[in-house]
Amino acid sequence: MSIWFTEKQTANFGITAKVNKTLAALQTDYQDLKMVETVEWGNMLLLDDMVMTTEKDEFVYHEMVAHVPLFTHPSPKHVLVVGGGDGGVIREVLRHPSVQKATLVDIDGEVIHYSKKYLPTIAGSLDDERVEVKVDDGFMFIANSEKAFDVILVDSTEPVGPAVNLFTQGFYAGIHKALKDDGIFVAQTDNPWFKADLIHQVFHDVKEIFPVTRLYTANIPTYPSGLWTFTIGSKIHDPLKVKQERFHEVDTKYYTPEIHFASFALPKFVKELTE
Amino acid sequence: MSIWFTEKQTANFGITAKVNKTLAALQTDYQDLKMVETVEWGNMLLLDDMVMTTEKDEFVYHEMVAHVPLFTHPSPKHVLVVGGGDGGVIREVLRHPSVQKATLVDIDGEVIHYSKKYLPTIAGSLDDERVEVKVDDGFMFIANSEKAFDVILVDSTEPVGPAVNLFTQGFYAGIHKALKDDGIFVAQTDNPWFKADLIHQVFHDVKEIFPVTRLYTANIPTYPSGLWTFTIGSKIHDPLKVKQERFHEVDTKYYTPEIHFASFALPKFVKELTE
Repeated sequence: MSIWFTEKQTANFGITAKVNKTLAALQTDYQDLKMVETVEWGNMLLLDDMVMTTEKDEFVYHEMVAHVPLFTHPSPKHVLVVGGGDGGVIREVLRHPSVQKATLVDIDGEVIHYSKKYLPTIAGSLDDERVEVKVDDGFMFIANSEKAFDVILVDSTEPVGPAVNLFTQGFYAGIHKALKDDGIFVAQTDNPWFKADLIHQVFHDVKEIFPVTRLYTANIPTYPSGLWTFTIGSKIHDPLKVKQERFHEVDTKYYTPEIHFASFALPKFVKELTE
Repeated sequence: MSIWFTEKQTANFGITAKVNKTLAALQTDYQDLKMVETVEWGNMLLLDDMVMTTEKDEFVYHEMVAHVPLFTHPSPKHVLVVGGGDGGVIREVLRHPSVQKATLVDIDGEVIHYSKKYLPTIAGSLDDERVEVKVDDGFMFIANSEKAFDVILVDSTEPVGPAVNLFTQGFYAGIHKALKDDGIFVAQTDNPWFKADLIHQVFHDVKEIFPVTRLYTANIPTYPSGLWTFTIGSKIHDPLKVKQERFHEVDTKYYTPEIHFASFALPKFVKELTE
């Protein structure tokens, strides 16, 4: 018997992957969680039947969420990750020697638990001594923080289920308050082929609050359309004005200083969403 | 009843799309040809059960095959398209006012026939008076041409079936001979997630023949991994040295002068295939 997992990325289109076995399947307090071993992508974390991360292509998302803002900031010391219970963003954050403390706030402790168990190359960094892990509501955590962070990275699920508050202008205003005076934040903002309206809305919501607002992209094969966007809001520092001497060596498979700048060059139909 | 088409992009991974109806299904002299009406992507052309083009996302591939080399060449007059029977590349080529003649050589006349019938927004330009259509073997046509073309665009299927000869060094040598002294060619060269070896091989084969050899990418959601590569071989002109004044207005949805340059910034694991 051959078992295939299918994610309907829209009502009429999806991806399908052959599954060796199901490692975990449960309903948490917040969402449906599955961990499956696929042939093509290695172990794969699914939340509400949407692919969150896979061992084979996770590096793209995690590198691009973390390194673009962390190289844009001249010296990030305290970094907050909202969501991201799989630990991949934290792993990349810790590659920056200036970082003294990285705080992870994920609402769902089961995501952290099962990622540590079945995605050790992704979640291993959560045990680093610079990391503080909180199982808490990211929206409320942000609302209660003030000038506390150099960089905030929003590694959320889609704007359905527990993450729905993380795509509101109230949340972005909270992030602005929680950042230091030269702080930067990045949020994953889905794909322009199926979610153009969302990107347009988030970009303009962020732009009302942050002086420097930009959109960048990366190719993630297991995410809808393969073209993912990230919205960056910054109080001062511009990701397009990072000086070459700022870039230090970092062990990556996708990100390079050249990709840093090129990722802001948007296909025309995507650029139009920011206008 | 709900009908879904599934393309296995690898043995263990694929895409699946809901189909309203099958418009055509036949075995041509060279391959299995299907035209289906999908809900998500509009009409879709399948050759040997692989997605060749869809009405909704075809613009990416066709713009990026054509405009990168045609803006790199200072004044392309005669352009040859090998394969590309759906007509999309020809449509983009004709947007360049310097082009006096565009020759299409596709081995399979049925592809041209059914594209004209069911993909009129893509194939319509094949009736333009500047276009010459030949149903012929592209490999032999190239072998019999000498210093005839300013730009050659290889819009082939995958390197299985009728296109297998189009991924050989003998073919690239033929292209070199068929190009004028400052000619440029581009070939689609699949994706780096599942076909890394192919990209590495083609790039180095082309590099042995052409002084300027470069790889660039574009996001095509219905192609495997969503990240497509194109290999460009040029006798003189460098796509990275196109002057701003060379770019004229062109009606596109993906390509821009900024994307022209950014598409050559390769993710690290892709760049390594060119080294």
